[in-house]
Amino acid sequence: MNRLQIIETVQEKKTFLCVGLDTDVQKIPPHLLDCEDPVFEFNKAIVDATLPYTLAYKPNLAFYETQGWKGLLSLEKTVEYIRLKRENVFLIADAKRGDIGNTSTQYALSFFGQANPNHNFDAVTVAPYMGEDSVKPFLEFENKWAILLILTSNKGASDFQLLEYNNRRLFETVLETSKQWGNADNLMYVVGATKAEMLSDIRKIVPDNFLLIPGVGAQGGSLEAVVRYGMNNDCGLLVNSSRSIIYASTGKDFAERAAKEAHAMQREMALFL
Amino acid sequence: MNRLQIIETVQEKKTFLCVGLDTDVQKIPPHLLDCEDPVFEFNKAIVDATLPYTLAYKPNLAFYETQGWKGLLSLEKTVEYIRLKRENVFLIADAKRGDIGNTSTQYALSFFGQANPNHNFDAVTVAPYMGEDSVKPFLEFENKWAILLILTSNKGASDFQLLEYNNRRLFETVLETSKQWGNADNLMYVVGATKAEMLSDIRKIVPDNFLLIPGVGAQGGSLEAVVRYGMNNDCGLLVNSSRSIIYASTGKDFAERAAKEAHAMQREMALFL
Repeated sequence: MNRLQIIETVQEKKTFLCVGLDTDVQKIPPHLLDCEDPVFEFNKAIVDATLPYTLAYKPNLAFYETQGWKGLLSLEKTVEYIRLKRENVFLIADAKRGDIGNTSTQYALSFFGQANPNHNFDAVTVAPYMGEDSVKPFLEFENKWAILLILTSNKGASDFQLLEYNNRRLFETVLETSKQWGNADNLMYVVGATKAEMLSDIRKIVPDNFLLIPGVGAQGGSLEAVVRYGMNNDCGLLVNSSRSIIYASTGKDFAERAAKEAHAMQREMALFL
Repeated sequence: MNRLQIIETVQEKKTFLCVGLDTDVQKIPPHLLDCEDPVFEFNKAIVDATLPYTLAYKPNLAFYETQGWKGLLSLEKTVEYIRLKRENVFLIADAKRGDIGNTSTQYALSFFGQANPNHNFDAVTVAPYMGEDSVKPFLEFENKWAILLILTSNKGASDFQLLEYNNRRLFETVLETSKQWGNADNLMYVVGATKAEMLSDIRKIVPDNFLLIPGVGAQGGSLEAVVRYGMNNDCGLLVNSSRSIIYASTGKDFAERAAKEAHAMQREMALFL
């Protein structure tokens, strides 16, 4: 999906919700465990239930990799299933990759469906520590996106991201520097909802780019604060919620309850659009 | 493998060579492409040929992920094959992972064979940007290791890793900070061979930890310089070479030529031990 398609979908569906498919086989409803592929069955039901309220899905690769190659197969089936819906759905591989140039190119080929049509994501989250040539390979595919880690929602974010030098914090330097690598059509940024008050500092540097905001819900971030400090004229936000939606219930009503949670968030989002 | 086993293996085999299994299906000898699993066949032949000269193997996950779930299966078969050798081989998943705590735990379970016995690595490379709780989950498994990115061998390393504040560069701060998270028994560091002259600065901060040194060979780093600035009393080095060994030939003699290259490096290493 390109930038215009994202903005149009936000306006049509009145949502900027991203549902995190962090599907942990230990946490899915027990009645699914008898299926041939419990993770895929769970994802399918969650997608069917939440799609009317959702702009994006974001599987976190870790939860699939723990199941080895079978987990990757569950993920590929999930991506294929979502693509068969023939709707505009923004698909993010939350993989936090980043390596020397030729290796990042391999990751980009992998996630952007060039090597495997059933692994056709729109975007990949990327870690910035290794600098320009670790990020740029993700920016070289038409209508595909890198989503760069800037200010994360976890406690350890303060270890390095907030370090100050020349009156500028590391995350601000990463932002400034990355503007030379890409633009608002191929580069988004991860900013944790738990750091909402810093969103206005970030908007001073990147007024136009979309921001992917994890941490609303189970991690304690507030949607209202995120909107106040982070929204721009194009919306400019993708707000992710994982556990509070997909694990809203561990009973047979898990999909229904996930839909209810997603719908509640969508209604709240519609008020801000 | 624990620290003592690593040191003993270095002494016995007179090597601190790590062979990078960056197996690119586009680059392996054409005659293997008719096999059922060309990547596995290639790896098996490379391992058989190079094991006498090698302390460690380091598959880079990107090259397997481009092949989707089938690539992961090739990797699992490779790990299983190496483990069946019943030798002390240090196995590194070069994955450069790092995420919020509960997600890093999933990655650790994945790579350390807890979720899948055929995915039983000794170590994982980890990116530091997200701080303490993104790294610590990798340090909580007995005889397992996190190998933290400090100073990488690529050009982009200078974008952030060399930033200075309070008279200290970012990579030095990452080093200092990480000493509170782990020790020489569970934490190693990635330092590019192309930055050999900075190894003495690094040794001032972490005299005891093992360092994983990529960049010797195809990327242009010198073994002699790495040894001069980085070796300690326990050797303290794992020097990686990927392309210059595994792609020494693209003909039917690829394994033989890989053995020759690995043997040449091992002989050079033996002189320093």
